[in-house]
Amino acid sequence: MTAPRTLHLNAFLMNAGHHDAAWRHPDSSPERVTDLRYFQELARTAERGRLDSIFFADGLALWGKARYNALGGFEPLTLLSAIAAVTEHIGLIATVSTTFNEPFHTARKFASLDHISGGRAGWNIVTSGTVDEARNFNRDEHLEHRVRYERAREFLDVATKLWDSWEDDAIVLDKERGIYADTDKLHPAAHRGEHFSVAGPLNVPRSPQGHPLLVQAGSSEDGKEFAAQYAEAVFTAQQTLADGQTFYKDLKSRLARYGRAESDLLVLPGIAPVIGSTEAEAKALEQQLTDLQVPEYGLAQLSGMLNVDLTGLPLDGPLPELPEERDINGNKSRFTLVAELARRDGLTLRELIARLGAGRGHRVFAGTPEQIADQLEQWFTQGAADGFNIMAPVLPTGLTDFVDQVVPILQRRGLFRTEYTGRTLRENYGLPRPANRHTGRPRPVTA
Amino acid sequence: MTAPRTLHLNAFLMNAGHHDAAWRHPDSSPERVTDLRYFQELARTAERGRLDSIFFADGLALWGKARYNALGGFEPLTLLSAIAAVTEHIGLIATVSTTFNEPFHTARKFASLDHISGGRAGWNIVTSGTVDEARNFNRDEHLEHRVRYERAREFLDVATKLWDSWEDDAIVLDKERGIYADTDKLHPAAHRGEHFSVAGPLNVPRSPQGHPLLVQAGSSEDGKEFAAQYAEAVFTAQQTLADGQTFYKDLKSRLARYGRAESDLLVLPGIAPVIGSTEAEAKALEQQLTDLQVPEYGLAQLSGMLNVDLTGLPLDGPLPELPEERDINGNKSRFTLVAELARRDGLTLRELIARLGAGRGHRVFAGTPEQIADQLEQWFTQGAADGFNIMAPVLPTGLTDFVDQVVPILQRRGLFRTEYTGRTLRENYGLPRPANRHTGRPRPVTA
Repeated sequence: MTAPRTLHLNAFLMNAGHHDAAWRHPDSSPERVTDLRYFQELARTAERGRLDSIFFADGLALWGKARYNALGGFEPLTLLSAIAAVTEHIGLIATVSTTFNEPFHTARKFASLDHISGGRAGWNIVTSGTVDEARNFNRDEHLEHRVRYERAREFLDVATKLWDSWEDDAIVLDKERGIYADTDKLHPAAHRGEHFSVAGPLNVPRSPQGHPLLVQAGSSEDGKEFAAQYAEAVFTAQQTLADGQTFYKDLKSRLARYGRAESDLLVLPGIAPVIGSTEAEAKALEQQLTDLQVPEYGLAQLSGMLNVDLTGLPLDGPLPELPEERDINGNKSRFTLVAELARRDGLTLRELIARLGAGRGHRVFAGTPEQIADQLEQWFTQGAADGFNIMAPVLPTGLTDFVDQVVPILQRRGLFRTEYTGRTLRENYGLPRPANRHTGRPRPVTA
Repeated sequence: MTAPRTLHLNAFLMNAGHHDAAWRHPDSSPERVTDLRYFQELARTAERGRLDSIFFADGLALWGKARYNALGGFEPLTLLSAIAAVTEHIGLIATVSTTFNEPFHTARKFASLDHISGGRAGWNIVTSGTVDEARNFNRDEHLEHRVRYERAREFLDVATKLWDSWEDDAIVLDKERGIYADTDKLHPAAHRGEHFSVAGPLNVPRSPQGHPLLVQAGSSEDGKEFAAQYAEAVFTAQQTLADGQTFYKDLKSRLARYGRAESDLLVLPGIAPVIGSTEAEAKALEQQLTDLQVPEYGLAQLSGMLNVDLTGLPLDGPLPELPEERDINGNKSRFTLVAELARRDGLTLRELIARLGAGRGHRVFAGTPEQIADQLEQWFTQGAADGFNIMAPVLPTGLTDFVDQVVPILQRRGLFRTEYTGRTLRENYGLPRPANRHTGRPRPVTA
């Protein structure tokens, strides 16, 4: 008899909350976005709820319009390291771009975080897609979508070579004979490719998880293929159960061609749960947040998602004619999702801004804790999800409410753990420790 | 009446200790070099001693021979962030290379660490000088010494523009009116130079110290000139009081041409104190460590410092003919120091390896706590130092002994603080908070 399948929960943390008006809500704390203790408290709340992990998105330029939103905060790896020091179980997932980094630095930082946290590091791999980011890194234009993914694949190839460059038992530590490391168990990366030449070995010994958990979020054709090859968890944005099922099936079906099993990759759709003790209360909170939206900000965000300048268009009119996805060089999957949402429901610009306010294209659901648990259970049992990326509209309250009110229902239904059973992030996600290419043997994590 | 001049102390931490045989000594803990708690304990020991700061060196390749020394550990910024979370006062100085990084990333990480630590971040600026590092970053050879310093100057120019890109009071946080930041107080970096094009602004608001404390360690002609222009503290290696005085006077005399006062830069020579309750006991510890040295390792280290392959030369013979400093493209000042030490004292290779074992060219002094305090007082009062970079030969014991036995003597003599008086690293070092170029006004750190 195998253990019943249970779901995985990641808390996607963002400054004052995911809703673009969260910082204006009385329950939020935008004055704390550069206060370490604020994020430590959020992490401990997630850990109290036995969540698998917390996660920070990232961009390499000042996002959107800082005039109208609480933007600008910590670099995620630095922040997660300081959070690791005050938590014990929660996984720590940082976004790092393969477009504007070097694999040696990135592999090293994740190996460090994995050691520091005792095996709780995860890497959300992104290919930066905006001109604003390119302009902070010596370029006038950003790299073409296909080239970004080529670079990303080679980046991962180098990073995994570096993580394998120390065998698990390379450190001998024989004080008597004066031998610290068995250098036969240290391997160069010896990588010479299109984008990178990296000699190695890494200057950090192999870490508790071997490799950090590899996470990916792009859902374009290139993105899905990349995920099928490398990712162990995928954060995705799906609006309907049917879309979720289609995406889930599509992605899982791609794994075999890379010699991977369906269970080697977890699909975690995002959901922004707006929680109320009654449905009416939840809808009222949703409306309160919509009323606090700054239209200029929403329009700027929407312009960015669609790669079309919407400034000056009437808010109560329709979307203008849009380009085709193939002509989009930014986030292709988000473009298509937003364009389809507007078309399907015939939304005005104002209505679209309201719909996107809480989740930037991720699914929003307002209801009671029971209703939210029902939604999660339905997606989980009907082939659309292995777990969820929880995006609290307002922090800290949205996370506290989820942990205190929704998690116990999932636990009572036998869908979610009541205690941590794994020691590492991989163990909690039910994923194997990768074998070292030089030995073929994964080391059991019992040392 | 002005307050009496007091000295500043930095604890330079290194894996098992600074002596290259430290890891073989019974008091060291080389099995803990990837254990966060080990470094947290060291930091708390330094804080208990009221030291100004701790510091980690760094290299972007596996140093020397891991076969014979406890090499490979944490990336310093990740580590310091996790240390920040469990300390309150101690300054946190990380080494980051300007040769193989991008200014946007580096400026951002230090701004993050400065926020995370409440104003305790410091950056030891280095220009990586080895081929092994270059080969991890897409190059077959490393950059020429002069070009590395040109790039370093432009890197600093960009970083300071980014740190000034948010004025101190840019965040308005008016929930009522829906205004988060006053975008008139956000400035692009708009940098277009020889090595970098960076648009800015930074995506982290201005941090408690404005800029992290800027530290530098190279003592070549290029290095000293760079220090005079940018550095606020200099770690240096001087063997004799006379050399220390010459270096101190030379460096301080260069400040005026950059419009800086002599008090704007602290000179902190390194010293590896070998502490014993009697002089004989200290000398015995020194001899014990020499006896534990692995000659192959010492020879490899020396080959690296001199840029000459010494493999196979008789250990009891002299140094071979050496090149001139102008032909050295690595660490020029360390080359000259070692070459002069060997010439001055007529040392064999074995003797030179023993001399360099504890401090890699930094001054080593074995004696009682009183004798060590005398040495520090002499250099401090006779124009060779504003404080010291303390390099414990064996950790943790060498640091604990220094804090428990040497610090109290310095305190009794009125040379060192008995309590922290500053809130930030700059305040403890007695250095001003830099003005923002867009306002000319430094903000008093009382917020």
